Amino acid sequence: MDQTAFLIGFSVMSVASLAIYATGKKTQPSGHHTLLHASVPFIAATAYLAMAFGIGTLVNSDGSATYLARYVDWSVTTPILLSGLVLLAFHEHGKTGEVGGYLTSVIVLDVLMIVTGLISSLAAPSLAKWIWYGWSCVAFLGVLYLLWGPLRSQALSRGAALGTAYAKNLIFLTVIWFLYPIVFLVGPEGLKLITDPASVWAFLIMDIIAKVVYAFYAAANLDKALAHQGDERGYRA
Amino acid sequence: MDQTAFLIGFSVMSVASLAIYATGKKTQPSGHHTLLHASVPFIAATAYLAMAFGIGTLVNSDGSATYLARYVDWSVTTPILLSGLVLLAFHEHGKTGEVGGYLTSVIVLDVLMIVTGLISSLAAPSLAKWIWYGWSCVAFLGVLYLLWGPLRSQALSRGAALGTAYAKNLIFLTVIWFLYPIVFLVGPEGLKLITDPASVWAFLIMDIIAKVVYAFYAAANLDKALAHQGDERGYRA
Amino acid sequence: MDQTAFLIGFSVMSVASLAIYATGKKTQPSGHHTLLHASVPFIAATAYLAMAFGIGTLVNSDGSATYLARYVDWSVTTPILLSGLVLLAFHEHGKTGEVGGYLTSVIVLDVLMIVTGLISSLAAPSLAKWIWYGWSCVAFLGVLYLLWGPLRSQALSRGAALGTAYAKNLIFLTVIWFLYPIVFLVGPEGLKLITDPASVWAFLIMDIIAKVVYAFYAAANLDKALAHQGDERGYRA
Repeated sequence: MDQTAFLIGFSVMSVASLAIYATGKKTQPSGHHTLLHASVPFIAATAYLAMAFGIGTLVNSDGSATYLARYVDWSVTTPILLSGLVLLAFHEHGKTGEVGGYLTSVIVLDVLMIVTGLISSLAAPSLAKWIWYGWSCVAFLGVLYLLWGPLRSQALSRGAALGTAYAKNLIFLTVIWFLYPIVFLVGPEGLKLITDPASVWAFLIMDIIAKVVYAFYAAANLDKALAHQGDERGYRA
Repeated sequence: MDQTAFLIGFSVMSVASLAIYATGKKTQPSGHHTLLHASVPFIAATAYLAMAFGIGTLVNSDGSATYLARYVDWSVTTPILLSGLVLLAFHEHGKTGEVGGYLTSVIVLDVLMIVTGLISSLAAPSLAKWIWYGWSCVAFLGVLYLLWGPLRSQALSRGAALGTAYAKNLIFLTVIWFLYPIVFLVGPEGLKLITDPASVWAFLIMDIIAKVVYAFYAAANLDKALAHQGDERGYRA
Repeated sequence: MDQTAFLIGFSVMSVASLAIYATGKKTQPSGHHTLLHASVPFIAATAYLAMAFGIGTLVNSDGSATYLARYVDWSVTTPILLSGLVLLAFHEHGKTGEVGGYLTSVIVLDVLMIVTGLISSLAAPSLAKWIWYGWSCVAFLGVLYLLWGPLRSQALSRGAALGTAYAKNLIFLTVIWFLYPIVFLVGPEGLKLITDPASVWAFLIMDIIAKVVYAFYAAANLDKALAHQGDERGYRA
């Protein structure tokens, strides 16, 4: 069961990486978004390959499995996805330091969210387990605060078209990312309300939406914004 | 004893992270320094939480403890603190490549300093232990050379006000960072002249000074420099 | 035997790091290349020191050794070398986002190449071992595609002089980097056609060429390009 899911994950992610690159814009100002979004499923493909071979798969004392490959994947792919949003917010205007400051703080919170989630997942049912889960959620709220607060203001200050593209991408990511702590909570890592295979398939579908569907959606939104911006400039000229 | 220190560490660092963000400037050219300095104690808070729960705590054959969480914390927080200094030295003028070159070399030396320190800490008393300690000090000297040599020249070339802010921050960091290899040397990791609890409390106080007090001090120095720069521009105009 | 190679590696890399820094240009637009290239052998020196002390050395069931320190070294030094090429391709013109997009995708592929190589090296002879080796080669091809395709076009668009410097460095790196998967394939990690000491000495020579000789070669090519560019500007003026 799980094996099938992992091999589907590997196949979909490999093909998606090539497809995102092949169909994406190669020139500025959107070329680097294509590169970032094509990198993400390549990493996920490698993680699914590792899970298919049982590499980094820990079996806990209660028989449930923790897939380390997932957490390694997430700790690299989510920073890349967040970088795409930060770079969109500063579209061609951010200074090295300013962009670097936001990237650093968003990525620090994001990686701590994942690492503390892993600690929670490995802990036996106990108060400590839920403290780690709670701290992971605090970090997630920090990420959301930066994305919805200061970075959204930045994006809006680049004009209505870019502000809209940023907002659409942000809503998409926020909704899909919210599902992860919920599936984690009800899955084998948490309350064990759903089985291991159910959790594996749920994460597979969510990963495809968050990494592949999102890549095409974000590229379309950016294209529309740039076209609109061109129109605005055209009218002015 | 240790437990109390770890919980104080967690509490102080959590509150400090929020306080640094809440009281810090949000706009450029100092907004990214606020973000960097607020990220640092959030990481430290997570590390202290891990130490409180014994996660990543190794007990050596002689009964002394090595706290891996500390080294993970340091290997992320010290690069962020150094990035703040490097970005200050290039205040709004560095090109991507130039700033990136300094960031890379300073962070490489800094992380090697911490990793080799960890290796030294884990080694049984032997020649090898002291070779690793020595190599860690070599890396530290490399960091200091870059900060006091080429980067200080960069900072001075941005004008007297910024040069002064850079120098003040650098002196503060240099003094407090020098205490770490000394406490390491006399503590359970090295010559075992002081006890484990004494070392834990010493690191707690040093961490608060190097991460929290420094954040407020650096923000005040930058504010003063920017105000002064404004005055200079005012006189010229 | 191996021990001698490791100590030679440590010595050569330490001295090379200092020599590259001491003889390299300190000012822009080539100063950051000096810093990047001096960082690389410092990391390698630390890795050779670790191998000399047996730190991170795993002995497999068949008696062959896997040196984790090598893989840690490579996963940091190869991204730095690639960053040098990417920054050369965008010589003083890349925007933060654009350069960041290429850096991210090249480094992601490069690090996955190394991590999957490590997995392959640790796997017992099996289909899985060769699937990982193959996936590592796919990632390597991805790196080469980006370097020879879009990044070479970028470099050429900066003028003939810089395009030539980029192409020379790229040919050098491509040739020497191709030897790694070959030595890996015939060595103890793969088909075991050559002995462990033979593999250690081969990697030592390759490391010195790829990290030290390359640093001087790349610096000379950049100097020549900048001088030539100066001439071109002189003629025009």
